[in-house]
Amino acid sequence: MASKGKVCLAYSGGLDTSCILKWLINDQGYNVVCFLADVGQEEDWDQVCAKAKKLGASKMIITDLRKEFVEDLCFRAIQCNAQYEGRYLLGTSLARPVIARAQMKVAQEEGCQFVSHGCTGKGNDQCRFELAFLAIDPKIEIIAPWRIPQFFERFQGRNDLLDYAAKMGIPVTSTKAKPYSMDDNIAHCSYESGQLEDPSKPPPPDMWTRTNDPTTGPHTPQDVTVQFEKGIPVKVSFEGKDYTDSLELFIALNEVGKLHGIGRIDIVENRYVGIKSRGCYDSPAMTILRAAHLDLEGLVMDGKVRSLRDQFVTHSWSEILYNGLYFSPEREFVENSLLFSQQRVNGEVRLQCYRGNVFTVGRSSDTEKLYSEEESSMDSLENFSPVDTTGFININAIRLKKYGLQKLESGESLAKS
Amino acid sequence: MASKGKVCLAYSGGLDTSCILKWLINDQGYNVVCFLADVGQEEDWDQVCAKAKKLGASKMIITDLRKEFVEDLCFRAIQCNAQYEGRYLLGTSLARPVIARAQMKVAQEEGCQFVSHGCTGKGNDQCRFELAFLAIDPKIEIIAPWRIPQFFERFQGRNDLLDYAAKMGIPVTSTKAKPYSMDDNIAHCSYESGQLEDPSKPPPPDMWTRTNDPTTGPHTPQDVTVQFEKGIPVKVSFEGKDYTDSLELFIALNEVGKLHGIGRIDIVENRYVGIKSRGCYDSPAMTILRAAHLDLEGLVMDGKVRSLRDQFVTHSWSEILYNGLYFSPEREFVENSLLFSQQRVNGEVRLQCYRGNVFTVGRSSDTEKLYSEEESSMDSLENFSPVDTTGFININAIRLKKYGLQKLESGESLAKS
Amino acid sequence: MASKGKVCLAYSGGLDTSCILKWLINDQGYNVVCFLADVGQEEDWDQVCAKAKKLGASKMIITDLRKEFVEDLCFRAIQCNAQYEGRYLLGTSLARPVIARAQMKVAQEEGCQFVSHGCTGKGNDQCRFELAFLAIDPKIEIIAPWRIPQFFERFQGRNDLLDYAAKMGIPVTSTKAKPYSMDDNIAHCSYESGQLEDPSKPPPPDMWTRTNDPTTGPHTPQDVTVQFEKGIPVKVSFEGKDYTDSLELFIALNEVGKLHGIGRIDIVENRYVGIKSRGCYDSPAMTILRAAHLDLEGLVMDGKVRSLRDQFVTHSWSEILYNGLYFSPEREFVENSLLFSQQRVNGEVRLQCYRGNVFTVGRSSDTEKLYSEEESSMDSLENFSPVDTTGFININAIRLKKYGLQKLESGESLAKS
Amino acid sequence: MASKGKVCLAYSGGLDTSCILKWLINDQGYNVVCFLADVGQEEDWDQVCAKAKKLGASKMIITDLRKEFVEDLCFRAIQCNAQYEGRYLLGTSLARPVIARAQMKVAQEEGCQFVSHGCTGKGNDQCRFELAFLAIDPKIEIIAPWRIPQFFERFQGRNDLLDYAAKMGIPVTSTKAKPYSMDDNIAHCSYESGQLEDPSKPPPPDMWTRTNDPTTGPHTPQDVTVQFEKGIPVKVSFEGKDYTDSLELFIALNEVGKLHGIGRIDIVENRYVGIKSRGCYDSPAMTILRAAHLDLEGLVMDGKVRSLRDQFVTHSWSEILYNGLYFSPEREFVENSLLFSQQRVNGEVRLQCYRGNVFTVGRSSDTEKLYSEEESSMDSLENFSPVDTTGFININAIRLKKYGLQKLESGESLAKS
Repeated sequence: MASKGKVCLAYSGGLDTSCILKWLINDQGYNVVCFLADVGQEEDWDQVCAKAKKLGASKMIITDLRKEFVEDLCFRAIQCNAQYEGRYLLGTSLARPVIARAQMKVAQEEGCQFVSHGCTGKGNDQCRFELAFLAIDPKIEIIAPWRIPQFFERFQGRNDLLDYAAKMGIPVTSTKAKPYSMDDNIAHCSYESGQLEDPSKPPPPDMWTRTNDPTTGPHTPQDVTVQFEKGIPVKVSFEGKDYTDSLELFIALNEVGKLHGIGRIDIVENRYVGIKSRGCYDSPAMTILRAAHLDLEGLVMDGKVRSLRDQFVTHSWSEILYNGLYFSPEREFVENSLLFSQQRVNGEVRLQCYRGNVFTVGRSSDTEKLYSEEESSMDSLENFSPVDTTGFININAIRLKKYGLQKLESGESLAKS
Repeated sequence: MASKGKVCLAYSGGLDTSCILKWLINDQGYNVVCFLADVGQEEDWDQVCAKAKKLGASKMIITDLRKEFVEDLCFRAIQCNAQYEGRYLLGTSLARPVIARAQMKVAQEEGCQFVSHGCTGKGNDQCRFELAFLAIDPKIEIIAPWRIPQFFERFQGRNDLLDYAAKMGIPVTSTKAKPYSMDDNIAHCSYESGQLEDPSKPPPPDMWTRTNDPTTGPHTPQDVTVQFEKGIPVKVSFEGKDYTDSLELFIALNEVGKLHGIGRIDIVENRYVGIKSRGCYDSPAMTILRAAHLDLEGLVMDGKVRSLRDQFVTHSWSEILYNGLYFSPEREFVENSLLFSQQRVNGEVRLQCYRGNVFTVGRSSDTEKLYSEEESSMDSLENFSPVDTTGFININAIRLKKYGLQKLESGESLAKS
Repeated sequence: MASKGKVCLAYSGGLDTSCILKWLINDQGYNVVCFLADVGQEEDWDQVCAKAKKLGASKMIITDLRKEFVEDLCFRAIQCNAQYEGRYLLGTSLARPVIARAQMKVAQEEGCQFVSHGCTGKGNDQCRFELAFLAIDPKIEIIAPWRIPQFFERFQGRNDLLDYAAKMGIPVTSTKAKPYSMDDNIAHCSYESGQLEDPSKPPPPDMWTRTNDPTTGPHTPQDVTVQFEKGIPVKVSFEGKDYTDSLELFIALNEVGKLHGIGRIDIVENRYVGIKSRGCYDSPAMTILRAAHLDLEGLVMDGKVRSLRDQFVTHSWSEILYNGLYFSPEREFVENSLLFSQQRVNGEVRLQCYRGNVFTVGRSSDTEKLYSEEESSMDSLENFSPVDTTGFININAIRLKKYGLQKLESGESLAKS
Repeated sequence: MASKGKVCLAYSGGLDTSCILKWLINDQGYNVVCFLADVGQEEDWDQVCAKAKKLGASKMIITDLRKEFVEDLCFRAIQCNAQYEGRYLLGTSLARPVIARAQMKVAQEEGCQFVSHGCTGKGNDQCRFELAFLAIDPKIEIIAPWRIPQFFERFQGRNDLLDYAAKMGIPVTSTKAKPYSMDDNIAHCSYESGQLEDPSKPPPPDMWTRTNDPTTGPHTPQDVTVQFEKGIPVKVSFEGKDYTDSLELFIALNEVGKLHGIGRIDIVENRYVGIKSRGCYDSPAMTILRAAHLDLEGLVMDGKVRSLRDQFVTHSWSEILYNGLYFSPEREFVENSLLFSQQRVNGEVRLQCYRGNVFTVGRSSDTEKLYSEEESSMDSLENFSPVDTTGFININAIRLKKYGLQKLESGESLAKS
């Protein structure tokens, strides 16, 4: 069979993408280059590599994207205090743009006409990957097997995959399905599906991989200092050691956070495709950094800018990222605003990590002066005339008095509870 | 001296308001009715009452506002997931409208021409109280001694107050200033000023009154279940007991939260008057309820409504309350929207309280069906055609492809990191 | 051929839907009930009726939705000052929910298993209709011929339709394609496609149907008075006549507006599906009512409520309607807020219509008192202490002074231009 | 009398500021440097100069700020589509920052310890000027006579000013008060107070100075072309002439607009200090440019960016400017976002000006390609699969179906009107 062309497949070494790899080559007649992004997940890289080759991949390319991931995405999220629906720190969403970009670069370099992935048809990730692919280079076509009837009708359950694997000589480590699916990277590990689909039941206690059980954490709180420049963590210090390399400091915080069980969440969220789903996530470093950054902003950022930033930038950027719209004009537009807001976010925050908690112990800035003890003090009247406040209140009350009058006239007194 | 009229003074029994009381009567020639709101603070009510009388108040009126406070304000904040600047649960701001309303009611009933209070000239509370007073009844004039030069120039420090107290026979419990000021109510205790004005130093460990030290909490997590109707907590259950009365369930959660050290925050915030200040707050019940409510909304609220609500209602309501604009058309406008958003927030959330943490263990709703295990499942294709997602992605990508093209043409490839 | 079931087809009598009707019956084997909504468009109803019957429709149902359209949708848009992308008054978008609802009611009453329409695959209308259909009753399946390959591959241009019409005996009034497409209803007529696709060229002068050429309008401006209750127009008066019936006053304003050439716009807009398109619209009554309503709000609505309403309600409601999401929880959520904002929008506005313009001549309200000549007057100091403004300014300047200082320290003086 | 110091007074030559000038020198003992900004108003500059000198000013400095005003403020407003409360183009608000900055520069250069102005105590302008002064240099103190009891109690009406003028030898052109006050600059002329305080009455027909009566405009529409680069007008062409200098093109458009009676508005607005007031404004060039810019954005700006920009930037920037907060971190924050949004706003718009109207005749861009006739066309299926829309609709309908179901279960059918 003449090759139908060259596909760059996101290959993890698991059962699904192994079957897809084989199916693309044997059933569909493609030449397949496998790609795996190293975004900090636990992985036996050599084994994945060997397996891809064994199954017929013409190449297996593994790219270390950890630093790029941390600097371009994770730190941006920290600058933004990004959070989806008030809780989720976006670990998966942050990784997708970096992976998609690298996969497309490989596809272009390898002369592929196609890219492919193993995402299911109901999730967020297919959107995130494919919207990125299409923005980056729409001439490269997408093969999404789990949305191709020929594929998804043939492989209707895990058993069909196992049968195919057996038939095609695909090595399978376990014939039993995991009770939930996981997706790991340096920002977090996510857990969903399977037994987690019942939102009334807690996840199994042994599920979490990036955090220890908070109740088993050390008895003594751990002091950690984080220093920021323009909202970006530039130094992390604890136990007498300083970490200044972006990746190293992130990894160091992941270790501290893991030890103290910091950053577990368990939520029901609204997927981009309109379906609610239950997800569990543990994000130690991100949780610590977000707490520190949020705290520093209190000290150094103008209150009105902060309010506008919170309402528009933080909210919009988080949604844009969650929905997989990183490569979009709106992300660029909002991010420009974010960066501008961070010019003065310079200073350091001292934290205590303890059994699931990140407590703030103190914050300071050598360069920023918006906070003034003198001015803040209730006792000092230096540079402050209390009489001014009377005017401030009276002017602000002009509208309110009319409101009260309106209420009175319509028979509702504001004095009544 | 003929009376200059009748003043309703917010009287706490402390040094400041005792001096104000005496000053209003003796120096200024007013007849003073004292008012003290019971919003759940720790207080020796009889002693305050006796002191007011002894100092010459014509009356001392104490009103129990706890239920009204919890139901009208605290529960509204919970429905709203209210938070100022990403962290502060607004405990003080929530109490002010209830107190101001009750004080004005007393002023009206007692035929006062004036209301007075002991708030300082640089804080938020003067704004909150007075904007409320002026909205409720602008015919009643406000006497704010800490903004009257005659008063604040005379009493320039604590020693001046102590001298006056000694001279006028005002009983003083301690001649030493507290190292910070506190304001307590059932929602929280706040701590600010004094030694807390240095934001780089942690507060003294013995400062907190509504929470125990999290590191000394019980070894075993405590299970708590909270049931909501229309976003309002209607039942709290733990250790085999159910609490259904609003005030009782709130108090019960305060006790649980205290034991487990839940709800401490330490922040630098932006006051309405444009000054940054450092505040510490411990809000056990509010923290637990907020966590539960936020979680339930994930299960039962439409995603798009939630996003709009978060961005506009939650943000605006929190700021409005913080700034003391409860009695305003904008609060009414925003709150109407809030209540509408809560119609379907019915269900229960199971939590674990443990050493500063509130973990979600599970959530469910008998009446709301937006979450569906079947639909959520990645494996099931019941009522779902994966091919649809292809169309969804392609249509959403139309804009993005043009964006990518634009970038290419201007020499920036999205494929480059 | 046994019937494949019963289809309720939105039938206009034109070439497209006539071919669809015949195709559904003859080629596909459906039993077809035709439905046509009367939303105020110019139409020869009897002829449409006769044609449908002649082509084999089992029934032709025409429903007068004009009043419902005006009251439920057009007046809501007026209350909202709705506008898409700063200009478009949403005439088409407003009609869709009313039509879709009526068509589904017919489908249900006639026991149809399917609904069908003649919308093209790239426009907004298919989304608006189908999102409504699916929200109202997802058990009724949708047949969208212009998105079914079997249909759109067969009918690739107007000639294919004409050939089919000739073959099937479908009466055709003109064999020449119109140079653009039109969609008419009582709120506006829209013009797009064809020669209008070149946005650099003006539309042909004889295109507009609901407005005369402004340059040919009467020499004398026409006075019109509009009275509102809760933001809804309840009386329109001109030339000594009063119109109080919703439909009658709307029609009367359409006539006035037509005469004076009011309400033409010509824009490039962003469709929901991500494509830009050029549209021309003439909306006489809507333009007059919007101008009047906007003006009255200045007089009677609190400024802060107005600002919040503008930013969130007006913006969101307009987008929701444009995108066809009328039957959605977010529309209900936003509209609840809109209605609340209109409680005090009572009063009347006097206007002058003249050659494309709507000038305001005056506004007044018997019931609303937020505006006060006395208070507004720069000369009067009744109830106003100018000293208060000093305090107001000083307090507001606290932040700004720090900002100026920050600038100075970083070597940028605000004094430099 | 030894001088109390040096004041830089904003001096217009009118009765008010002439009395203030005299009062500052004679009654208060200041040395006064007069300052007058040329922002394009009609003025007899020599006469003002002579009068200031005659009244005792130590210096009279007139600065031509027209180009700075047009480029830094007016064009920024055009880029923003700025509008306050849906109608006001901010002519006065835009001039204030430029004037305040120049006055402070003069104050600094002349070694003044004070700045002064003649704004009344209830208006917006005092806020705009003083917030600017305080941000720029808080060490220079502000003297606001109309808020100093000593002044405003002495001069309680026009007659007191006239008496003082007579006594002090201040030349007075007319002893009769104008029936309203005016403020003119190149962006607009504003009219308020006096007889305009009755919002139910139209302004006198002879009031308008920057626009002719629209009903008397030429019989033939006038063609005008405006070309934009990054949202800034760089070329205006009509009657065979091109204008490329910022100031010249602005003046040219003012002339065209004046002739055709373009840009009159008459509104009731909400002042920053919480008072409603009635204002009339005529802004010919601004109205034409805004129409052109708004139109071009439809052609060249991404729809999602536009929506975000409209909701946040346009809304916020307009409010910030209106409230006099130009010299603020929030204005800088928002404006940064505005500029980013304009990078692609390149192209030209052809307009017709006719009796109060600005009609768009066509728009095009040599560099921007977001609009595509091919793609926009309903007939072409090039690069578009109609089947995709089915998926798009189905996925978007997932939430809506649940909403419909919820309604049905609660007994409300969406099929019912």
